[in-house]
Amino acid sequence: MKNLFASRINTIPKSFIREILKVTQNPDMISFAGGLPNPRFFPVREIKETTLDVLAGTDVSALQYSTTEGYQPLREYIAKRYQKRKLSITADEILITNGSQQGLDLIGKVFINKGDRIAIEKPAYLGAIQAFSVYEPQFCPIPLLNDGVDINRLETELSVNSVKLFHTVINFQNPSGITYSENKRRELTELLKQHNTIAVEDDPYSDLRFSGTAPQSMRSRLNGKVILLGSFSKTIAPGLRLGWICAKREIMDKLVTAKQASDLHSNSLCQKIVHQYLINNDVDKHIETIINVYKKQRDVMITAIDENFPSEVIFTKPEGGMFLWVTLPEQLSALELFKLAVKENVAFVPGTPFYVDNGGKNNMRLNFSNADENTIKEGIKRLGLIIRKLLVKKNVE
Amino acid sequence: MKNLFASRINTIPKSFIREILKVTQNPDMISFAGGLPNPRFFPVREIKETTLDVLAGTDVSALQYSTTEGYQPLREYIAKRYQKRKLSITADEILITNGSQQGLDLIGKVFINKGDRIAIEKPAYLGAIQAFSVYEPQFCPIPLLNDGVDINRLETELSVNSVKLFHTVINFQNPSGITYSENKRRELTELLKQHNTIAVEDDPYSDLRFSGTAPQSMRSRLNGKVILLGSFSKTIAPGLRLGWICAKREIMDKLVTAKQASDLHSNSLCQKIVHQYLINNDVDKHIETIINVYKKQRDVMITAIDENFPSEVIFTKPEGGMFLWVTLPEQLSALELFKLAVKENVAFVPGTPFYVDNGGKNNMRLNFSNADENTIKEGIKRLGLIIRKLLVKKNVE
Repeated sequence: MKNLFASRINTIPKSFIREILKVTQNPDMISFAGGLPNPRFFPVREIKETTLDVLAGTDVSALQYSTTEGYQPLREYIAKRYQKRKLSITADEILITNGSQQGLDLIGKVFINKGDRIAIEKPAYLGAIQAFSVYEPQFCPIPLLNDGVDINRLETELSVNSVKLFHTVINFQNPSGITYSENKRRELTELLKQHNTIAVEDDPYSDLRFSGTAPQSMRSRLNGKVILLGSFSKTIAPGLRLGWICAKREIMDKLVTAKQASDLHSNSLCQKIVHQYLINNDVDKHIETIINVYKKQRDVMITAIDENFPSEVIFTKPEGGMFLWVTLPEQLSALELFKLAVKENVAFVPGTPFYVDNGGKNNMRLNFSNADENTIKEGIKRLGLIIRKLLVKKNVE
Repeated sequence: MKNLFASRINTIPKSFIREILKVTQNPDMISFAGGLPNPRFFPVREIKETTLDVLAGTDVSALQYSTTEGYQPLREYIAKRYQKRKLSITADEILITNGSQQGLDLIGKVFINKGDRIAIEKPAYLGAIQAFSVYEPQFCPIPLLNDGVDINRLETELSVNSVKLFHTVINFQNPSGITYSENKRRELTELLKQHNTIAVEDDPYSDLRFSGTAPQSMRSRLNGKVILLGSFSKTIAPGLRLGWICAKREIMDKLVTAKQASDLHSNSLCQKIVHQYLINNDVDKHIETIINVYKKQRDVMITAIDENFPSEVIFTKPEGGMFLWVTLPEQLSALELFKLAVKENVAFVPGTPFYVDNGGKNNMRLNFSNADENTIKEGIKRLGLIIRKLLVKKNVE
């Protein structure tokens, strides 16, 4: 039957991360692998109460088919939240999706013809590589520097070829933890103004800022040339599968058609639950609680790395989000390290899945949101020992 | 910015039905348009109780990321339900999706290269036309006869060209209400055995059988050559957006990769709610309640049509499901009738959206599940008057 499969299906990378998640089901495993929010902070009680609220009256529309665009009061809530941050977005520019991941799929559907050039970060968010791969683009990976994408390299790419989309996780990037500086955003704005390229500003983590102030979003700088993605997965709960796309009406119309064809509309019940939760509760206070814990966990991880990893190992110190990014000495293989680490019951994600060009061999992504402080210390200690052993072995070889 | 859109986006038909749904928000409108289940039978109390159950303990996995394949106990429940009906399907052959509609999108992703030939029914389920259109196939519409697809026409099509998929809504088809007879299924089985074509057996309505016995499914006849789709939308509630795909492992692996890229996984909370609902309640008794009401409503609609429509109008008398299909005299336009009907506060879906070749001009789909008996009588009476007036007008012209 093989000959019946579409050619695209062989180009989609399987998520190494989701495969790892199966390994990490083992309760003794210390996992820095997933991108899981800490379940301690899921608002379980509030969601129970809210569900009863939503299903209390005679209005049973929470269980019926609903509009493709999404639950109107939820769209309005999201728009108002942006407006409070001086971002001029209206409810009719918002489409509710099944997490940001579906947003990426819909963008692929609407924009990418086979062979189109799509610029991504290097390393890039794996979910974006997967979602876009379905539509068989030619990826142009642009290196990430410490303050955002390498503008010169991006400029060369945009000048030589037409590039339809530039995908960026602009705050606390997955996998690198890097945030674009004010200066970098200004340069990026100037560059994109000169080209017929749309920025996909993928921003699921911006609420999780531990320190410093957030530079203005690309959407506020480039307006309709930006498609902005958001998510409730990191602030409320990912199991509800709710995110959104903000785009100007011209693009929105196409996205809505693509969403109709994809699954008619997102879950009516959970849209109403999330909206009611946001009305009944102080979500910013809830986010503050999460931030305080994640910040401590990040600090513990950084300190543990400083204490346990050899000095040749370098790593990012993100101002927020859920990940940091480790660069091992070049002679080390993160995959080899991974195999040894799993035997010691520690898991992480080796760097290669975040590259489309076989890069990342000596990189690893460490998640700090989903393990408590002592577990982080113990896990990093074990990793440090293995790295040192590997280094000795390689230096002898 | 127009030149940035992918070519496929212009080939996806916008759902006329979903556009009509906006018109039918008017509470005075008698709507035979949507494919909405009757909300009177949504198990609201049970879903509230179940949600509390699901979120009662210390296990908060209902709110966390979960596996792409779906909630294992729910997959097992679905497999067992099939096994009770002598259909040999295992849990690992089931992928949970966001309604059947997402199943169609995933099948498109996995199978359809641009230009591939895909056989569909004529008229076809609009959602299938939309979902597959994204992948730019060449549609081969095969006429539906009263007992299923025209086998001779399908045979010609399969013999002359290679056809990857044949999509069929095999029970109480949407839009026509037609069910494939035992004989037709046998012929279809023999035909498909001879060709490298996969049957997509789209079966959201089979639980809603009012009378007679269900012929064996195509999956039981053709095994791995069939992809079977099911849904909780018609039996529990569509707002939960849960359906499933059954396919053999070889195909399932590809579908899981496509689902990962599309939205990681379906709603964890609602998967657990639906599973707990099925464990705590007698769903077959619930379905029986729905059947009894829909059957009465179908009968009322048939009687009202007999009494009110001119004898030149012919229509199907489905043994189940939610729709019947009306063929007006050829000189009448269903779209013209629609415009006049909306002025009299009656809505339905004109036939053309169910065709890819401009057919269906004198057809209309009538939904009988979502209006009570008196409303059905009144709506059909109004339609009858308009049809008679239109006929007189056309005969004079």
